[in-house]
Parts: sequence; C-alpha cells; structure tokens
Amino acid sequence: MVNTSIITIGDELLIGQVIDTNSAWMAQQLNKSGIRVNRRVAVGDVWDEIWNALDEESKHADIILITGGLGPTADDITKPLLCKYFGGKLTVNELALQNVTMLFEKIFKRPLTERNIKQAEVPDVCSVIQNKRGTAPGMIFEKNGKIFISMPGVPHEMKGMMESDVIPLLSSRFEVPYITHRTLMTFGIGESMIADRIQDFEESLPTHIKLAYLPNYGMVRLRLTASGKDKQAIDQEVDNLFATLQELVSDHIVTNRDEKMEEVVAKLLTQQQKTLSTAESCTGGFIAHLITSIPGSSAFYKGSIVSYSNEIKKELLDVMDQTLEEKGAVSEEVVIQMVKGSLKQLKTDYAVAVSGIMGPDGGTPEKPVGTVWMAAGNNREIITQKLHFRFERQLNIQLTAVNALNLLRKFIVENNKAG
Amino acid sequence: MVNTSIITIGDELLIGQVIDTNSAWMAQQLNKSGIRVNRRVAVGDVWDEIWNALDEESKHADIILITGGLGPTADDITKPLLCKYFGGKLTVNELALQNVTMLFEKIFKRPLTERNIKQAEVPDVCSVIQNKRGTAPGMIFEKNGKIFISMPGVPHEMKGMMESDVIPLLSSRFEVPYITHRTLMTFGIGESMIADRIQDFEESLPTHIKLAYLPNYGMVRLRLTASGKDKQAIDQEVDNLFATLQELVSDHIVTNRDEKMEEVVAKLLTQQQKTLSTAESCTGGFIAHLITSIPGSSAFYKGSIVSYSNEIKKELLDVMDQTLEEKGAVSEEVVIQMVKGSLKQLKTDYAVAVSGIMGPDGGTPEKPVGTVWMAAGNNREIITQKLHFRFERQLNIQLTAVNALNLLRKFIVENNKAG
Repeated sequence: MVNTSIITIGDELLIGQVIDTNSAWMAQQLNKSGIRVNRRVAVGDVWDEIWNALDEESKHADIILITGGLGPTADDITKPLLCKYFGGKLTVNELALQNVTMLFEKIFKRPLTERNIKQAEVPDVCSVIQNKRGTAPGMIFEKNGKIFISMPGVPHEMKGMMESDVIPLLSSRFEVPYITHRTLMTFGIGESMIADRIQDFEESLPTHIKLAYLPNYGMVRLRLTASGKDKQAIDQEVDNLFATLQELVSDHIVTNRDEKMEEVVAKLLTQQQKTLSTAESCTGGFIAHLITSIPGSSAFYKGSIVSYSNEIKKELLDVMDQTLEEKGAVSEEVVIQMVKGSLKQLKTDYAVAVSGIMGPDGGTPEKPVGTVWMAAGNNREIITQKLHFRFERQLNIQLTAVNALNLLRKFIVENNKAG
Repeated sequence: MVNTSIITIGDELLIGQVIDTNSAWMAQQLNKSGIRVNRRVAVGDVWDEIWNALDEESKHADIILITGGLGPTADDITKPLLCKYFGGKLTVNELALQNVTMLFEKIFKRPLTERNIKQAEVPDVCSVIQNKRGTAPGMIFEKNGKIFISMPGVPHEMKGMMESDVIPLLSSRFEVPYITHRTLMTFGIGESMIADRIQDFEESLPTHIKLAYLPNYGMVRLRLTASGKDKQAIDQEVDNLFATLQELVSDHIVTNRDEKMEEVVAKLLTQQQKTLSTAESCTGGFIAHLITSIPGSSAFYKGSIVSYSNEIKKELLDVMDQTLEEKGAVSEEVVIQMVKGSLKQLKTDYAVAVSGIMGPDGGTPEKPVGTVWMAAGNNREIITQKLHFRFERQLNIQLTAVNALNLLRKFIVENNKAG
C-alpha cells in the first residue's frame, strides 16, 4: 500500500485567515487514482517547522506532496529550503524563464523584474514541472526512495500541475490498489437512528469494505469504501452491498450518488424539461447561487427575484400589502404569494420561495431568529413548510437553502408520480 | 512561547469529501487570545494513525486540540482510543446523560436509544466539557505536562465549547504573549510589484514583526504580525509601521482592515445612508449572497433581479430586444440597461450589474468563456468595465462578483467626492 502525506505551507493557514481547500481537492484526485492520503499537515512559513515536517512525513509516507511558499516575496522560503534539504544549487530553468517572460509580456503586460526572473530558478537536483497557469515552477525530488513534489499554493496553478504531471507520474510509478466509493444521501433521519437500523449490515461488512457516516445537519451521507486488486470483483461486491444499504434506508434517500441537493434538483428538472424560478427573501440569492453553480443550469433556470425588502415583495412578486401587515413577512401566506408571484413574473413551471429571520438580529418572541417559512409549487398546487434553525447567520442561510431545495425536490417527485 | 497543534480526525478529510473549516476557525480564535498554532494535522479514522498523531504532536506542542471522531457510530473510534491512551475506564457522566436525555425528549422528539446513552460515557481520567449544542461531551486530559482537549467535529458544537470552556481555560493556564495583526487589501497590483515597492520597508522590519503577502487573483492582502509582552508598546510600534505601509501602497488600497470587499461596500453605503440593488446574469445571485451575508444588510440592500434568461432581462429589467439581438447579452450596452432597469424597478440609489460567460460552455470566438461586462452607477452616471477570466466556473463567478463590487466601490467613492 502506497502512503501519501500532504504538507501545506503558509502562516495564513495557522492564523485561520485562509481555509485550506487545496488539500481536499488533492485528496479527491489522488483517491480517484487509487492513491491513499494518510496525513495532511499544515505548517507556517518557518524554516525549522517546514524542515521537521519534511523529515517526519517522509517517515510516514512514500509520496510527500507540498503546496505553498513558492511566491516571489521574502516570506516564501520553501524553494531555498528545499534546495538545501536536498543538497542542490539554485539555477535558472530555461523553459520556466521562457514561461515567466511570456506571461509578463503577453498576459500581465508589465515589465519583467529581477524578482520575477528569480521565480524561474530551481534547485539543480530536481525535475521541473512547468507551470502553464502561473510563474512558479513545480519541483520533483527523490530521497531514500521517497518522492517529494512541491507545487505553488495558488489553487488554479496547483490543479493544473496535478492533472498534467503529478497524477500521471504517481500512477505510472506505483502499483496502486483499486479504491472505489459509493455514497448515498439521506434527509430527515438522525445518525444514530440510521446506525441502529443498519447495525447488522455494518457488522457483516468484510474488512476491505468500510462504512462511514457523514452527518451534516439533518442530512446524513453514508459512504462505502472498498479497495483491492481486482477492479471487477470489487465493483461487483460493493455494488451488491450498496444495493442492500439503499433498501435499508430507502424511505429517506435523496440520492444514491455523491452529489449535492442542487444537482439532484437540476437532474429532475432537466429530465422533465421543466423550468424553475426562485423568490428569495432571507437566503438573499443563495438558492439562486447554488443552482447556477451547476454548468448548463440556464437550460432550466430562469432567474430569481431576491426581495430583501417588503416593497420588492409587493411590487415585483405581487405580495399583498394586507398580508404583510396582518401576517408579517415571515408567514405561510407570504411565501405562498411569493411562489405565485415568481411563477407569474418569471413564467416558469416550478417556483420555490423562502422568508425567514437569519439573525443575529430581527427576532421577536413570536418569531425568534431562525424561523423560516418556505413554499414550493406550480400553477396547480403549492406546498409549504415551517422550520426553525438555531445556528449562526451563515449556517441558517445554508440550511434554509438546502431545505427549500429538498421541499422543491419532494414536490417535483410527487407531482411527477401524480401526473 | 506556548505551542499548539490541532489534530482533526476523519476519513472524509483524507478523501477530500469535506473541507476542513474547523481548524481555520479554531486557529483564528486561538490567535486572538495570543495562542500560536504551530501545526495542523489531519488523520483518518484509523487507530494507529490517531495514536501516532497524539504521540507526535505532544512532542511539538504544549496544547493538543482534537476534533472529530466522537459520533455515536462504529467508525467513530476516538473516545475508546483516548480512554486507552490515557489509561482510563469509560463511565457515564451524569450531567452529559441529563443533556442527551433532554435533547432527545425536548428537541429531537425521538426515543433515547442505548447508542445515545453511550454518548454520555467518558473516560474517568478526563475533565468533561458539557456540550450545550449536541450530544457528544468534550474531554480534557493531561499527560507529561501537556493538555489534550477532544471536541466533536460538528462545527457548531466545537465552536460552543471553544468559546465557553477551551479558550478561557487555556488563557488562564498559560502565560501567553500578546499577538496582534494589521491587514490591508490592495486591488489591481501584483505581488511582486508590491514587493519591489516596499522592499526597503520590509528589510527594515524588526524580528518580532513579520510581513506576509496573501495574493488572491488581483487582490493582495498585506499582513503585519507583531508579538511581545508589552501590549501598549507593541500596538504603538505596529501602528506606526502599518501607517508607513499604507502610504507605500496608498494608490491601490481597498481597505486597511481585515475585511472583505462586500464589507467595505456595506460600510460605505451605511455611512452614506444610500440603498443598493443588483441585476445579475452570470453570477446567478452570488453578488446578492455576498452582500446579504453581512448582518444588517437589509438596511441598505433592497434586492436583486437574477436574470438568467434574456426574457427576464427584457421583462423585468427593460433591456431592449434590439440591443440583445445586435450586441448580445454579454455587452456593454446590456449591462448599462441592466443597471438602469435595476435602479428603476428596485428604486435604489445605486445599482450594479454583470453579464458574462462563466463556462465551461457558452463561449464563442468573439466572446470566449470568461468574458464579462459589468456596470455600476446611479441615476446620473454609469461606469462600465470589461474583464476576461481564464479559470473554472466557480472561480470565474467569484472573481466576477468581487470585481463588480470593486467597480461599485470605486463609483461610490468617486461619486461622493464629486458630490
């Protein structure tokens, strides 16, 4: 079994100024290629700590992937450190220099400085990965049978190098087992209730197949991970087990793929060739954003009226003044009228609407922070739901959006059965 | 100097299914309290690897914070492992049991199972942190003068424990230095150009003050970090240096605080008591989402028309049919009409509009993927900008949004000067 460690370098990771999305992406890609990531370590721009991390991770792993610390400024000490660690000397790489020169002439349209030229220098003991998306080249070192690969921390540049060079190199170099995952998502059932229900199934799993629970506020994803040599046999075995697992939680399954709620909704609408619009108050465009994150969503999604004020609700969504006064903006009646207004104004087959109080302010004794009304429907029928979240603003917004999409999903599925 | 390591546990972190936002948040809070985080390590739900991580991190650090692996299911092995590691015996904690019982009776409204009762068990060699937001209690262990604190991986629950128990405990226990940061954000100047410009400044910094560059696609944040014993002296010193730094890059500064572009815009609008609306095509509600992420944004933000189809642009934003036909949806003329439509329909002082091609499909030779037109203005004047991004869909959407907000920011600042 080949083991891999990822080292990310940068003070910003240790003071929490930046969230490390790089290593999640890298782990995903490596896993798909059968390369298991065992450890991820983040250290600051501190010479001794980077040096120690290289020493330690090479004890744990055969492959050590390093990102960050390759910029042109004084706090980026990774390149000289690697040069010393592997006993080399910094020399200009001609191809890297051509690349830097081209970028500054053609793309940045700024004069090339001494500092930029230095970016084309690499230790003479490494193989170079050319950076097609930026100035800092990647570097491959070997020591005591271990491979060390250093890449820039800029996500876009790192991703380019992983795809074009790193994954192909590692896949050809190591004999990797076949690893495969099957994931399903449930909604509206707790982690421990699922665990009780599938206890016998879980206990009967062979050792090379693992079950994981990924709970996320009302949604629980269940993931089977299988590994072995014989791809066909492993796929067959895990498919059979996955079918059993699906039966055990069938009444709560949203999807039997590793996909997001908005992708499930997008598929339904695409299959049915129906259109959707949204009318958002408290989510402030977040539902629209989730949907339009999906490539090709313009085929079914027409748009949203983000009505962050009562005037917009009245003028653009035809919500009645009287309803707002008598029931308040956060009420079943208002979200029903918002769905109707959205269907009419944006001329779509389906619409979904939300109105709530996301906090930290705006709550009242009758309608405390976290109270949300949502509605979904078409020209014939509208269903509603009231929920109450007890979290901070961002999480309340996210949960409202995903619950509204789930309400819409249920409506579309039921409506299709009925039709 | 007190050193801290964060260990996060969970296979989902190593196959990239989940992005680790917990440790960034923890690092932020610890830094504010003067506690430096040296290392962050992620390991899977694997007995030996968790055990090794405890051994190793206790060599590096005085404080070891652990999250994850405390759920009620079989893949959550952290609690029995900690029990063995510290030589204890699992026993029911009465307060934790009361909490679990209350949660199931009052909040979840589900029967309490054997599995849930087990969540109230803790090793008899730890101090317990009660979980006010969930079922799994936190645990504090001590060994060889090092403190180990285990918390659930659910962000909301971990945050509650950090605030109520962990930070107060650590602050009272260790004599921590004062650490302070000053951050400014620039726009439209590259990292190496800044570095050349401030080279003398950077080289003259005393050793207890560090400068970091945080580049992020056209925006570069510069951060000064100072530490020492004497709070007042340190603050004075770093404030003086920060003033010099601001002068050196004054023509490119967006803000001299660690705040986001949308927060800068929100402050300007609040100060001026002006209102804003948005008309979004390619960003699909993301600009609205950024703005409404800010608590209290309803004071200045009225809403958005997300016009993901040409019909919506025509019907709700009064974009002319002829313009769409002759110039196309991604054109200067269309975004100008979108701003006018937004100002009129949503009755606001300012409006910002975007239209572009985010990819992966939809590009043409004349308007390749990444082409974006944006406009910002009021009833007297509208300014426009054309940009071209070369990234993947998500990043193109984010960059379009932040650039549109920057265009709006510049317009508001200039307009205020003129007015």
